[in-house]
Amino acid sequence: MTGVSRRGFLVGATGVGIGAGAVALAGCSSTEESLKHSGGTASNTGHTAELVDAIVAFDGPHQAGIATSAQAHLNMVGFNLKSGVAKQDLANLLRLWTADARALCTAETPLGSLEPEMSVSPANLTVTCGLGRPIFERIGVAPPNWLRDIKAFEHDKLDPAWGQSDLVLQICSDDPVVASHCLRHMVRSGSDYAEVKWLQQGFSHAHGNYQPGETARNLFGQVDGTINPRTDEEFDAQVWIDEGPQWGQGGSAMVVRRVRMNLDTWEELDRASREHSVGRKLSNGAPLTGEEEHDVADFSATDKYGLPVIDKNSHMARATAPADHPEQKILRRPYNYELPPDPRTPDQLSNAGQIFVCYQKDPSLQFEPIQQRLDEADLLNEWLTHEGSAVYFCPPGTHAGSGEGDSWWAQSLLEQAGL
Amino acid sequence: MTGVSRRGFLVGATGVGIGAGAVALAGCSSTEESLKHSGGTASNTGHTAELVDAIVAFDGPHQAGIATSAQAHLNMVGFNLKSGVAKQDLANLLRLWTADARALCTAETPLGSLEPEMSVSPANLTVTCGLGRPIFERIGVAPPNWLRDIKAFEHDKLDPAWGQSDLVLQICSDDPVVASHCLRHMVRSGSDYAEVKWLQQGFSHAHGNYQPGETARNLFGQVDGTINPRTDEEFDAQVWIDEGPQWGQGGSAMVVRRVRMNLDTWEELDRASREHSVGRKLSNGAPLTGEEEHDVADFSATDKYGLPVIDKNSHMARATAPADHPEQKILRRPYNYELPPDPRTPDQLSNAGQIFVCYQKDPSLQFEPIQQRLDEADLLNEWLTHEGSAVYFCPPGTHAGSGEGDSWWAQSLLEQAGL
Ligand code: HEM
Ligand code: HEM
Repeated sequence: MTGVSRRGFLVGATGVGIGAGAVALAGCSSTEESLKHSGGTASNTGHTAELVDAIVAFDGPHQAGIATSAQAHLNMVGFNLKSGVAKQDLANLLRLWTADARALCTAETPLGSLEPEMSVSPANLTVTCGLGRPIFERIGVAPPNWLRDIKAFEHDKLDPAWGQSDLVLQICSDDPVVASHCLRHMVRSGSDYAEVKWLQQGFSHAHGNYQPGETARNLFGQVDGTINPRTDEEFDAQVWIDEGPQWGQGGSAMVVRRVRMNLDTWEELDRASREHSVGRKLSNGAPLTGEEEHDVADFSATDKYGLPVIDKNSHMARATAPADHPEQKILRRPYNYELPPDPRTPDQLSNAGQIFVCYQKDPSLQFEPIQQRLDEADLLNEWLTHEGSAVYFCPPGTHAGSGEGDSWWAQSLLEQAGL
Repeated sequence: MTGVSRRGFLVGATGVGIGAGAVALAGCSSTEESLKHSGGTASNTGHTAELVDAIVAFDGPHQAGIATSAQAHLNMVGFNLKSGVAKQDLANLLRLWTADARALCTAETPLGSLEPEMSVSPANLTVTCGLGRPIFERIGVAPPNWLRDIKAFEHDKLDPAWGQSDLVLQICSDDPVVASHCLRHMVRSGSDYAEVKWLQQGFSHAHGNYQPGETARNLFGQVDGTINPRTDEEFDAQVWIDEGPQWGQGGSAMVVRRVRMNLDTWEELDRASREHSVGRKLSNGAPLTGEEEHDVADFSATDKYGLPVIDKNSHMARATAPADHPEQKILRRPYNYELPPDPRTPDQLSNAGQIFVCYQKDPSLQFEPIQQRLDEADLLNEWLTHEGSAVYFCPPGTHAGSGEGDSWWAQSLLEQAGL
């Protein structure tokens, strides 16, 4: 197979991941197949075990886990390089991690793993790698302009514990045991070079508990994810980097914000106030001016008193791209978190929120102006606190194959740096 | 419908939960049905959304969540009564909680909830209630003899933060969003009377990622749950209380142990040593003397050197019921936990373990002698640390219906106490 035709094949395979979130991997080895579920009784009682063969293609023009529809579980893990790690070690780390992630995501056993049984059924596992600004400083390559701390907003209450790390891995799977095993494997396999700075664990609705294409609800009970890129054209326009140095093209910028949601006070609101604060109906996520979830919002509509139906300070009205700035759109890929009540806050009933993850070409032109408008006047602010912030460059996708060998995350960037 | 015939119906319905973990609830109201998934696009791309109608019957001779095969997610939440709560308040709390749990588990909206959308698709939600010894002291009824702290074992490193609470709710669902919403609802609805002492969150394999009847793997990669009661006779013999006062019969004793698993050192072992320490194969959970998972272990078999094939100090050999004590069997219903690395342990790669939950008639005759043998010599002890312990009386099941009205958790116990 030539390089060109393989690339064609990979483009096709990745495209599928956007809609269905899963493709049957053509090259799945039969040795792995025979390992699979050897522990199970084989009786079939109508239970289809539909996740058992769900695999998202690892290689492709873009990393998996971005356009992939969100799986049920997230382990977002920030790493710092250990002191004394040399530039060349970074290349070793990324080569190692890429090979291991590729194996785990495609139901193969990573080299040296003694746990083949734990990787037979990835349940749509994806591992997405991001590099923080410190990595560029370390390798002596100029970072993209936007790769710096997100600007400070007035309402921010950032805790450095959830702050910028050198590297990040976004591990997502529909099976929490798979997500946990993958986390542990990646932490261990990188442990000569990198150590965990933080771990942000999140969840979304379970595979099998929603209809195809159905938008998830967040812990406020809202349909969350309606306005998001869906077509290839929208992804090209909003998400994939297509300018600047070659090593960046096909990549994306990831922003991770940890946002606490005060459910204790949220729950004191009646339904009308809840809907008012976002501008959408709780029942099905339709804009207050429409009937169906995907109806276009009419921000100019007024009620019988002449007041706007969708408040101009509602979350949606503030977040939406202004007519003169159509580029202010992002891919949101948030996860819920819920932790035990914080002992430092005695009367707290709930300690929960959102790990807000978004992807775009350039946060200085997309995330920042949106968040600026939200920070200024979003009605939802009363129940939200931004507690963590980090930004990463996600390199473009990788390819696997005979001939030129498998490629690895950020390979062309590191080659540019002479590694 | 008379009381007798309704009971007959309920016995039937509950029986199903054991095998399939889900029954379609006959009485599911059509109002709820029409709420369901109104936010979704209805296109069908072969995705069956098989959890959407998965409901475990709430009422029955026994509480759900015990014989129910383990769902993917656990929120085990320990509560203490607030100071100043009177005996009568306890009855109010249990009446309220039972009604709310019944609604949430059967896809109905609890009275007063403003979030009907969050309860339309319970994904096998169960809520199981347990009472600690302090409750019996409060209401002035003699507790069962076994309802006291589990005896101290030599290797215990118990942290009081994970210790006995007045009450417990075991919330399980195949959808983490449902488990989270139910937790929050129950905490809030009980908040006049009870406050959270601890929250233990766990997970098991995802619905759809295993074959029917397939045993889950724990974080050590072991098939865990092979020897467990499965038939009604086994449940009657091991799990359901059938002696003593009427208010206890049909109930069960829950033991919750928080057991840390040292994955960092476990992962240094080769596969033969891992298998040796338990006495079973990693590939499919078969005993080292057999081929299939459910083959009966032969503890007398020896290898060519005359050594026992299954080490007498392997976890299985220590845990199994001795011939002269066939009553030393329990229902194990454990969940994995994985937390961010503990900052107090700098070189730790993994902070994980098991929320070991088991059910039985009498822990002093079942859990305690088993754990005594494990504590003395189990090879697995090198990687395990028991960090939490609590014991609860789980009252028998409830019934719902016209005529005599819905019953509530521990109703006959509290009536006995004159409440
Ligand atoms: C916990 C925090 C947040 C919650 C609960 C939340 C919730 C929502 C909800 C319910 C919607 C309407 C439905 C939809 O289109 O998905 C929405 C839309 C949106 N949100 Fe947020 N959001 C949060 C934080 C943020 C942040 C930090 C940003 C970025 C700065 C953001 C940007 C947007 C955008 C761009 C839209 C679509 C607006 C439109 O074009 O209609 N959100 N959010
Ligand atoms: C994290 C802690 C533990 C781990 C990883 C673990 C793991 C296992 C494994 C892999 C098996 C063999 C397969 C099976 O029958 O399920 C097993 C069996 C068993 N375990 Fe554990 N176990 C743990 C704690 C406990 C505790 C605390 C008890 C009770 C005191 C217990 C009681 C049993 C029993 C009764 C059996 C079945 C023995 C037989 O009859 O063959 N285990 N366990």
